[in-house]
Amino acid sequence: MMASQTALILIEYQHDFTSVNGALHNGVKDCMHQTNMLANSQAALKAAREKGVTVIYSPISFSDNYRELRKPTYGVLQNVISAKAFRQGSWGAEIIDNVKPLSHEIILEGKRGLDAFYSTNLDFILRQLNIKSLAICGFLTNCCVESTVRTAYEKGYDVTTLNDCCATLSMEEHNMALEKDLTLFSHVINHKEWLKTIG
Amino acid sequence: MMASQTALILIEYQHDFTSVNGALHNGVKDCMHQTNMLANSQAALKAAREKGVTVIYSPISFSDNYRELRKPTYGVLQNVISAKAFRQGSWGAEIIDNVKPLSHEIILEGKRGLDAFYSTNLDFILRQLNIKSLAICGFLTNCCVESTVRTAYEKGYDVTTLNDCCATLSMEEHNMALEKDLTLFSHVINHKEWLKTIG
Amino acid sequence: MMASQTALILIEYQHDFTSVNGALHNGVKDCMHQTNMLANSQAALKAAREKGVTVIYSPISFSDNYRELRKPTYGVLQNVISAKAFRQGSWGAEIIDNVKPLSHEIILEGKRGLDAFYSTNLDFILRQLNIKSLAICGFLTNCCVESTVRTAYEKGYDVTTLNDCCATLSMEEHNMALEKDLTLFSHVINHKEWLKTIG
Amino acid sequence: MMASQTALILIEYQHDFTSVNGALHNGVKDCMHQTNMLANSQAALKAAREKGVTVIYSPISFSDNYRELRKPTYGVLQNVISAKAFRQGSWGAEIIDNVKPLSHEIILEGKRGLDAFYSTNLDFILRQLNIKSLAICGFLTNCCVESTVRTAYEKGYDVTTLNDCCATLSMEEHNMALEKDLTLFSHVINHKEWLKTIG
Repeated sequence: MMASQTALILIEYQHDFTSVNGALHNGVKDCMHQTNMLANSQAALKAAREKGVTVIYSPISFSDNYRELRKPTYGVLQNVISAKAFRQGSWGAEIIDNVKPLSHEIILEGKRGLDAFYSTNLDFILRQLNIKSLAICGFLTNCCVESTVRTAYEKGYDVTTLNDCCATLSMEEHNMALEKDLTLFSHVINHKEWLKTIG
Repeated sequence: MMASQTALILIEYQHDFTSVNGALHNGVKDCMHQTNMLANSQAALKAAREKGVTVIYSPISFSDNYRELRKPTYGVLQNVISAKAFRQGSWGAEIIDNVKPLSHEIILEGKRGLDAFYSTNLDFILRQLNIKSLAICGFLTNCCVESTVRTAYEKGYDVTTLNDCCATLSMEEHNMALEKDLTLFSHVINHKEWLKTIG
Repeated sequence: MMASQTALILIEYQHDFTSVNGALHNGVKDCMHQTNMLANSQAALKAAREKGVTVIYSPISFSDNYRELRKPTYGVLQNVISAKAFRQGSWGAEIIDNVKPLSHEIILEGKRGLDAFYSTNLDFILRQLNIKSLAICGFLTNCCVESTVRTAYEKGYDVTTLNDCCATLSMEEHNMALEKDLTLFSHVINHKEWLKTIG
Repeated sequence: MMASQTALILIEYQHDFTSVNGALHNGVKDCMHQTNMLANSQAALKAAREKGVTVIYSPISFSDNYRELRKPTYGVLQNVISAKAFRQGSWGAEIIDNVKPLSHEIILEGKRGLDAFYSTNLDFILRQLNIKSLAICGFLTNCCVESTVRTAYEKGYDVTTLNDCCATLSMEEHNMALEKDLTLFSHVINHKEWLKTIG
């Protein structure tokens, strides 16, 4: 795949997931350590930049009182509200320095749902930039990463899930998502294998 | 939930999944037997009709030579091509008599992808009919059912997955999808529990 | 533009628009005659086929009693109901022989709204077939054609409106749509000019 | 219509359109003066707030060098680039004080295209807040306002275009859009008539 037609999509590398004291960190810390996903993501990002791959960040955020969400809600958005996670302007919602965006890189705005396509300008930007191939990584393997991979496949992109650059609530869920679900909708490989496919 | 604002979405009750000699039946037959999903789905359908719930069928189909799909493709759509499944006009693509549509019920047209929302008029029809609550069932628990549930949640519907009316390639995948993924995006209950919630 | 990456989208060449006794024919017949759009569309179709352009038909249709639509509704869908137009299985809903689809050509299913993207699998198919350039024609210049052109532009396609292959309720509306609206979202040229751009 | 299920959508009340020295002001100033749309919009906003209508702002913006857009592009996005309009952080991209958002009101993020639905979280938020009825106003009557109205209709909302709260490049285009296009997809009334419909 040509680098100019390829994007690396980094989903929710924000303190509330990645960092001690982050609102949702306790849930993912074991899986993060076992997959070593932060260091792998940094390596993937560095090499992707060198090859000229487009880098796109997909943070999630909400207003202070989550006024964009129905209340009471249910499911995963209720978990976000209960944890007071990802409030705009808070430390927890910041993208972490490990994968700090460069000034020319694209940070999606408006993400409120789980699927990085549904409430953002991701598809608009990818179509404008004539990008055909996506490598997707971040949090959670079986939630936002998987929803984004499913929709990317539906939209006809060539999709890769970077299996060593994701984490979720347990290794059991992480492995099941990769082996049984994400293989239906993407190439599931590690970041080193992915980098080799880019011309 | 009011029956007039509720729909039952039946995904891919077609011979290629459900019936001996169906192109993809061998993969799902064990799970179908263990969950007894066909009999449960029939019971859910009968009671839903009596309550006045809107019934919507979401079959998948393709032209004879799959000319709508890139070739070679990859992932689950490649599996469909390899199995020669769901060709329009074939026995395998027919909706089965167990859940035979009544003449006034809605059969979605155009479904080519996995998510029942993405390549169909499902959202258009639900918005027109002012339907807010969806119960979703069928095949495969972790593929088309799950993609549809994820998008329905993203679109703000109140979503229920009928856990005794689905099947997939193994009970392990079926249970993991229900317990770890579908609970993020829906109420996961059986059809009897669901029927009790409808006013 | 390469023929293999180009599609001709024919919108609503159905008796209810095109033919004497069609439910909505009286409204468009004058404009049809003045633009000579049927003969031009036939010529565009013949030449596009010879060049290897993908041909896609976008008919609109509804169930007998329009049960997919809220009632009462308003706007253009109410006009369709009032005229009893485009009922599935009726003569009025048939695609006309002047632009008869060949067996390998694609006929969109499920179109209920006006925009050919919104309630169909059009985007899915275009992405699968790696089509980047669209020429759009048919009925009505400022309704379904324009909604489709607007969304195609939004989705990043290279869009051409064939100005001699469209018609609407008056030449005034037709010309205003072409000159003031469709130029914002597409190249507005005639079918002969378009054919010259295809490699 | 109940106020709690109604939203007022204000499209592109930004200096680049509204204000002397705005990058695109010269094109719209005559129409603005003739329709008196700024004063009418302020009156509509004030009364809508008093009634408890949800207020949503839809500004458009781009990065400094428009890196999200293909270059060269064509159509209306090329006009935006050529005029150097709507750059994030610039005075021209600011929402004007005449319709200054209150701290609890919603400002859409991410709008890059013309249709306020396509590259934003507008639909997500409307579904979450159970809003069914939209009043739409702003710039340009036949571009972003019209694209948004068309898609809102397609998505099943009850749509009103506020005909005295819009402007475009000429009164001729303004009137044609309102009379011939927007009536297909919305109730076209002035802001005083709209306010009377809200319970």
